[in-house]
Amino acid sequence: MLSEHQLLTKFEQVQLPQLNDYLAKRLAKSSAQPVLAQSMTYSVMAGGKRLRPLLILAVVQSAGLVLDDDVLAVAGSLELLHTYSLIHDDLPAMDNDDLRRGMPTNHVKFGAGVATLAGDGLLTLAFDWLSTTSLSAEKRIQLVRALANAAGPAGMIAGQTDDILGVDQNYDLAELKQLHQRKTGALIHYAVEAGCLLTDMSATQKNALLRFADAFGLAFQIFDDINDVVGDETKLGKHLHVDEAQHKNTYPALLGLDGAYAALKTAITTGRQALDELPSDDWKLLASFFSYFDTDGE
Amino acid sequence: MLSEHQLLTKFEQVQLPQLNDYLAKRLAKSSAQPVLAQSMTYSVMAGGKRLRPLLILAVVQSAGLVLDDDVLAVAGSLELLHTYSLIHDDLPAMDNDDLRRGMPTNHVKFGAGVATLAGDGLLTLAFDWLSTTSLSAEKRIQLVRALANAAGPAGMIAGQTDDILGVDQNYDLAELKQLHQRKTGALIHYAVEAGCLLTDMSATQKNALLRFADAFGLAFQIFDDINDVVGDETKLGKHLHVDEAQHKNTYPALLGLDGAYAALKTAITTGRQALDELPSDDWKLLASFFSYFDTDGE
Repeated sequence: MLSEHQLLTKFEQVQLPQLNDYLAKRLAKSSAQPVLAQSMTYSVMAGGKRLRPLLILAVVQSAGLVLDDDVLAVAGSLELLHTYSLIHDDLPAMDNDDLRRGMPTNHVKFGAGVATLAGDGLLTLAFDWLSTTSLSAEKRIQLVRALANAAGPAGMIAGQTDDILGVDQNYDLAELKQLHQRKTGALIHYAVEAGCLLTDMSATQKNALLRFADAFGLAFQIFDDINDVVGDETKLGKHLHVDEAQHKNTYPALLGLDGAYAALKTAITTGRQALDELPSDDWKLLASFFSYFDTDGE
Repeated sequence: MLSEHQLLTKFEQVQLPQLNDYLAKRLAKSSAQPVLAQSMTYSVMAGGKRLRPLLILAVVQSAGLVLDDDVLAVAGSLELLHTYSLIHDDLPAMDNDDLRRGMPTNHVKFGAGVATLAGDGLLTLAFDWLSTTSLSAEKRIQLVRALANAAGPAGMIAGQTDDILGVDQNYDLAELKQLHQRKTGALIHYAVEAGCLLTDMSATQKNALLRFADAFGLAFQIFDDINDVVGDETKLGKHLHVDEAQHKNTYPALLGLDGAYAALKTAITTGRQALDELPSDDWKLLASFFSYFDTDGE
């Protein structure tokens, strides 16, 4: 039997080239403004683990459906949205980061003006891709609504604001959890929700999967916090030790490294328990995503 | 009989309070992050002529339909989107403007980080509002698709990129026209398109109205260019003479003031001719929008 790590690697080996190919081809046609198209393509095609779109693909495949162009459009759309959030997050006005995915950040390469616009363009394009699939109008609008809710001022943008305003403030654990839930959790929740929407999942299964998503999202952000302290800069392709330097609110800062590892373990257990409520053979692939935490984060 | 100016003023006196009330109430509930909610509200409620949402309302009213909450949501959504574009456009990384609508710009008041996020939030919220009306799923997804296309890398964002990259380059008239069509024209085109979608307009009428929209959009941007040279800073509520200082591509810069006025007149004539193809009594209100060019621009 394959280990979780092997199962996930096999899934990635099949799906990543297909997803990347889809993204590259479609981005090339996204704008008649050549510098804008270059700038958007530069950041999207810089790589990254594609965790969020892979989650969508994994839910759809686990539910027994074919990964057709509509599914790729929905998955790709989420990667556009995630990439926009990284570009804006790295801007001088925000975290002022010059390295991402092992390459100069978008504003270092194209200037902060074009980088701002490339982010705006990718965010808008994410909704364009969702609205132009051949799915039913009802399904498309449900996806738009779910994404706007997760990525907007009720979700990710609230978390980003918490994050930059939290500098030099000390959040308590409840506030920190809320920051992470909004900033990282909301999009991971959406990934699983989108998978459920694409597959007409039963309410019971959807409920368990969303609890998995929320626990996984929290684990993912705690792991990211821990990596900023103990990770390998070359492997992760971004500068580390920046959270501490910028006085960010993180799990290690609040609970110490041991406390952060314990919180990570608890989140993973919660997520596994949610998946245990489902027919196990069908959802092995999703459980394999926990093997991310055996290696290095994004 | 009312002059065009009186007709438009009367329409504004009824519709603006209703639209502003809708925006203020709904924005107040848009985010649990108080600083983000404040920052978004600050810029949206700073005023402005609300030209784009008013165009939607005017098309719907002219077609004989009631301006209910769904129509207000679609109109309000466009104002969110327009406001986001102003906030990002004013950022230090872009035009670096500190005055807008007679008030300090968003980043002067909240810092460039929160201003970037407020813009991102408003852009995302625009799609949220479109997706949550009680219109049919088919209509909602058509609106999302049209807005994403107009505001994204095929439209407004391409124009914004043309604009900042065009500094110190000299565009010819065709390039300048394309810049204006993308940067300003696309959203005005969308406003009329959205009005048509809301009213199930016939193809013939829609065709004439969209030609009106494109001519009006061009006239609007030429007028804005002219105002930057000859306008009254206090009345317009923003710094003027910045295009020349920033070496922007404008109609007065390319054609001189007289040439710019002539181009404005031509665009207005083209727009009026398009409306003349429609039953005139029904579309008087839309023609009244040309009276904007008797006063000062936004």
